[in-house]
Amino acid sequence: MGILVVGSVAFDSVETPFGMVENVLGGSATYFATSASYFTDVSLVAVVGEDFPAEHTSFLTSRSIDLRGLTRSSGKTFSWRGKYGYDLNEAQTLETRLNVFETFKPTIPPEYADAEFLFLANIDPELQLDVVRQVKNPRVIASDTMNYWITSKPEALKKVIGMVDILIINDAEARQLSQEPNLVAAARKILSYGVKTLIVKRGEYGVLMFTDSTIFAAPAYPLEKVFDPTGAGDTFAGGFMGYLANTKDLSEAGIRQAIIFGSVMASFNVEKFSLDRLRELSYREIEDRYRSFKAMTHFEGLPETA
Amino acid sequence: MGILVVGSVAFDSVETPFGMVENVLGGSATYFATSASYFTDVSLVAVVGEDFPAEHTSFLTSRSIDLRGLTRSSGKTFSWRGKYGYDLNEAQTLETRLNVFETFKPTIPPEYADAEFLFLANIDPELQLDVVRQVKNPRVIASDTMNYWITSKPEALKKVIGMVDILIINDAEARQLSQEPNLVAAARKILSYGVKTLIVKRGEYGVLMFTDSTIFAAPAYPLEKVFDPTGAGDTFAGGFMGYLANTKDLSEAGIRQAIIFGSVMASFNVEKFSLDRLRELSYREIEDRYRSFKAMTHFEGLPETA
Repeated sequence: MGILVVGSVAFDSVETPFGMVENVLGGSATYFATSASYFTDVSLVAVVGEDFPAEHTSFLTSRSIDLRGLTRSSGKTFSWRGKYGYDLNEAQTLETRLNVFETFKPTIPPEYADAEFLFLANIDPELQLDVVRQVKNPRVIASDTMNYWITSKPEALKKVIGMVDILIINDAEARQLSQEPNLVAAARKILSYGVKTLIVKRGEYGVLMFTDSTIFAAPAYPLEKVFDPTGAGDTFAGGFMGYLANTKDLSEAGIRQAIIFGSVMASFNVEKFSLDRLRELSYREIEDRYRSFKAMTHFEGLPETA
Repeated sequence: MGILVVGSVAFDSVETPFGMVENVLGGSATYFATSASYFTDVSLVAVVGEDFPAEHTSFLTSRSIDLRGLTRSSGKTFSWRGKYGYDLNEAQTLETRLNVFETFKPTIPPEYADAEFLFLANIDPELQLDVVRQVKNPRVIASDTMNYWITSKPEALKKVIGMVDILIINDAEARQLSQEPNLVAAARKILSYGVKTLIVKRGEYGVLMFTDSTIFAAPAYPLEKVFDPTGAGDTFAGGFMGYLANTKDLSEAGIRQAIIFGSVMASFNVEKFSLDRLRELSYREIEDRYRSFKAMTHFEGLPETA
């Protein structure tokens, strides 16, 4: 099987300078799974309430996402309301209603326990640890987190970081987690917690990847219209992990290509509200934009010296 | 001959979280010329006061910079005092004393009038226009500016932009000049003013180059210790123009390589206060860091399709 993702499925209400939407499909696992579904099979573990409409499950199923791990609990679906100014790099959260997500305790169905690729989206690090215990022998585990967990559960979070292969967080989180203002110093410190690959997302400025011996810098795709950055990070992670699970090439070169595919998917996602751009995307468009990334970053090297 | 630069030579007093220096050598033309001197011959047109010490002219001469255009006026040398917080991207200006720079009226010595490459550092756009009139037939003119001139002399500035080949400004300036919050839209608008190539500096996030038909994205070199960002933009411009003047390769590929050399020079400059890192730099180090940029940004393309 391909990838197992554990995270949130939610209703989002979002306002940007370019419009607003109410109660549209959102959530970290939703963005991740939809993005990854362009590259590989995806199974999703999350919880929704009784109010979650059939059209959303139909959409996810239409992307061949396995929903046997999607629990329906009595109560309402997790909902989030946020707003962006012209600086689209950071959302202002106006309201968070955890609802059924508050007591979410992920149970991995036995048929998912042999997942080769596991993505732990941004949830309580103690739940992330619990998921790791339930999955037998994954080849690659990647995880995300957020400022809230860095502050409230630093010990559990460091335990997670010591167990995963790849940590994907943003630059502010990297600085907060390491208590280092310089990003390179922050990365070195986080790698010392035991994770082999650190991917730092920098919004419109792209991504930096750090390992013990290498750094890879990828720009974000410069877009003339950014409508809604919601879900960009999870869409990036979905494209990244989806490509890795498809090729199973875990070399530095393979991981770099996966980062570009992740950046491609994120660049599409922000062009429309919710998952609207991902709903209508073709694989040909994905490859074309990958080629644009290549053209946009290429420069000639110098001849080698003796 | 190589490059002619017109700009400021100054005394800087700078405080960063990592230390402070008083009345050290600074100024846009100084950083530019020193950086460019690693690649080509440079002539400098600027003004200093009676207090400008021989050790600074000796240093510039030791870099083979032609100082016949450096006027010594009665009065004091331009001085600037600034401070940086942990966010090293922006300086807080504490004091600016224009002194002899206030009445600076650049006169291009006749022996410089056939300069092939001309860099107009950040000075009054009316003076920039005056310089362009004095230089006969330059192959490439590049210019810089700042928020102060965008606000106070927008018409003269747009006239400059219509006359130069390459405009090198930072992202905040690009947004201010174009009144467009989106950087890609801002770039399109600025190109419509008549400049062929726009280079947007984004501090620690690198550089974007825009032409009518292409975009090139280059990261900044991720440094573990950034001591003092003062002069990074002019050092970038110096490496960029220096390499162009050396190769005379004005193709897209040549300009991209020049951007990387500019980024290399800027990355060295911020490692120490003032021009201290540029004083001790070897060409071998420059090439080594260029290769690091290449290694840091490389990823495999996709096979071409029919």
